[in-house]
Amino acid sequence: MEKIAYFNNAATTFPKPEEVYSFVDKYYREFGFNSGRGQIDSPSKLTKDTRNLLLELFHCPAKKVVFTPSATEAINIILQGLPITDNFNIYISPFEHNAVTRVLNFLQGLYKLNIFTLAVNNKSLTYDLEKIKYQFSENKPNIVVVSHASNVCGAIAPIKEVCTMSYQYGAINIIDMCQTAGLIDTDLSSDIYDFVVFSGHKSLYATFGIAGFICSGDIIPRPLIYGGNGFDSANPNMPETIPERFEAGSQNIMAIAGLYAALKWIKKTGINNIYAKEKENLTKLISVLKEFNNIRIIIPSCETDTVGVVSSVFDGFSSDNIGQILSNQGVEVRTGLHCAPIAHKFLGTFPSGTVRFSVGYFNTDDDFIKLKHALNYIYENS
Amino acid sequence: MEKIAYFNNAATTFPKPEEVYSFVDKYYREFGFNSGRGQIDSPSKLTKDTRNLLLELFHCPAKKVVFTPSATEAINIILQGLPITDNFNIYISPFEHNAVTRVLNFLQGLYKLNIFTLAVNNKSLTYDLEKIKYQFSENKPNIVVVSHASNVCGAIAPIKEVCTMSYQYGAINIIDMCQTAGLIDTDLSSDIYDFVVFSGHKSLYATFGIAGFICSGDIIPRPLIYGGNGFDSANPNMPETIPERFEAGSQNIMAIAGLYAALKWIKKTGINNIYAKEKENLTKLISVLKEFNNIRIIIPSCETDTVGVVSSVFDGFSSDNIGQILSNQGVEVRTGLHCAPIAHKFLGTFPSGTVRFSVGYFNTDDDFIKLKHALNYIYENS
Repeated sequence: MEKIAYFNNAATTFPKPEEVYSFVDKYYREFGFNSGRGQIDSPSKLTKDTRNLLLELFHCPAKKVVFTPSATEAINIILQGLPITDNFNIYISPFEHNAVTRVLNFLQGLYKLNIFTLAVNNKSLTYDLEKIKYQFSENKPNIVVVSHASNVCGAIAPIKEVCTMSYQYGAINIIDMCQTAGLIDTDLSSDIYDFVVFSGHKSLYATFGIAGFICSGDIIPRPLIYGGNGFDSANPNMPETIPERFEAGSQNIMAIAGLYAALKWIKKTGINNIYAKEKENLTKLISVLKEFNNIRIIIPSCETDTVGVVSSVFDGFSSDNIGQILSNQGVEVRTGLHCAPIAHKFLGTFPSGTVRFSVGYFNTDDDFIKLKHALNYIYENS
Repeated sequence: MEKIAYFNNAATTFPKPEEVYSFVDKYYREFGFNSGRGQIDSPSKLTKDTRNLLLELFHCPAKKVVFTPSATEAINIILQGLPITDNFNIYISPFEHNAVTRVLNFLQGLYKLNIFTLAVNNKSLTYDLEKIKYQFSENKPNIVVVSHASNVCGAIAPIKEVCTMSYQYGAINIIDMCQTAGLIDTDLSSDIYDFVVFSGHKSLYATFGIAGFICSGDIIPRPLIYGGNGFDSANPNMPETIPERFEAGSQNIMAIAGLYAALKWIKKTGINNIYAKEKENLTKLISVLKEFNNIRIIIPSCETDTVGVVSSVFDGFSSDNIGQILSNQGVEVRTGLHCAPIAHKFLGTFPSGTVRFSVGYFNTDDDFIKLKHALNYIYENS
């Protein structure tokens, strides 16, 4: 198959570092056993080492790592498991994904919740910290959910500033780092971060099947999934201990091997070098897109930092139509609402959605040349 | 590393067919994209083809396949999602795993449930169909949960007979095929099977990270996990359609590739040939164990068929102690309660548990020789 110019790294990074593919294959062939369900300790050790590498990456050795099969499940465990009551004030960013909004919609059927949107300027895409301070003072936050970077427009949220303010009201702060873990060097050691969700297969460059959250263990949600842990089996309840309370069923050792190799690769390459490379590729991407007058790109003003995600609207074309034409030209993007309808409402691109281009560490100059050719093709033939 | 004699196939089969390792590696390198989150249709096609291979394996082309990351999660989705009310009569086999009993324990905190154990003779390990018929007539079943084969003693349940009886009362029947899917040729086309759970990494010889359930779609549980599906994104609720209702978050394409390759391997090898080979290995295993007078093995009487799982008690040793000694001799088993405390209470081996030996398709004569040497070593040194 001809090599694809892959601009869908926000959905899943592709390709992975060679080390990830080869270690997954090698490890699973040699040690594809069930962690904690036998005598061989290699899978248990690998799991522990991987948790430690994550804590090292996030500069928070005293915190705990809970593994889940997906970030969606991690968010469900947290939001469905918190002791929510009627009249809770829940703040979310205007960029939240259906993994947050659909859970909140379900919870609204159970409780009378007040859901507020954090103040963000919809032109500059900058968080308005003064307004947010005022919002919190008017309606004290009980829970705050913020995507560290939007999967639609790439804008990075000032999580430290927002969480510092909400923490003063005793709010539970939940940060979604699906687009930034392993990419933006972030110190999670502070108590202001109650739950931080990560996804292995996105910015961490690991495979599908491994995600989770980092927490201090001070707030313990009820479990969402009940089942065996491979120990304490006589207990009819899930254990109280973290991570075991949230890790029912067999661990996905194959995916943990991928995350282990990816974390080693990030450490070796340097997280800041990875981000610098992604920014370099983002600059190339924007430069190509700007050559076409009929493409409107949605990017934050220069004071807001971003990850390598750009949404765009092609005058005279539906986003799905553009996606299909680009695909026929060997260029892979994602079109539509990107599972984040509220972000599009905020950006004014609902319900038609956008054509999203997202770069990663491994994009090459060839990819940009191919993209330019494909865009030329669209405008020459329209 | 010296090759391990692996007798822990009930925890996860090992090794996998060569086709599984190589296809996972090749496919993920080439097409490791996000199914339904881009233009390239290969991952979506692979997912669809894998569902169809499962329906073919179970002779039920008209049913539906829902993928979940683990069988534990599949059971949670079903049991937590059913419209349970106070005074429901729930029957379970005496062999159920914590993936069932811990969920029921949680549900007992929400509802007044009557939980009954299906009548099984605790010597012959045979289901007593006459007694079960009487049990159902005395307390009409609302839900029946049966493990097709016990993960502790290998006994196969007469699911057709039990479900036919309970179906007459309108019960919802849930079958756990974690130890039998891909091993025991089973026709699931009948309406008597409402939900049938499978695990990829066990008897299906696929990898970790893929499991699920097969259902007709007539009974639709509420979702347990809320999030994006990659389509219908503007809907604040999970879709009503199956499987999408239960498949929030990215599909694990790497694991689906493994299941696809495993299903192809099962089809090529022949499910009955795989079972015959496992039975042959079971006979070899029992023959080795029987040479040692001090090992008490727990096997059903000859009228009950089994899978390749044997629990045993070593006179004068704790099960954990034996597990450790065997491990030092290069023999991998599982010891303790195997996440199924009620099975051990039923078998009289609670709370100390058993030493469980479980064979698979790939055990070799060398494994049995190594096992015999290790057992000799234990008795020569005790």
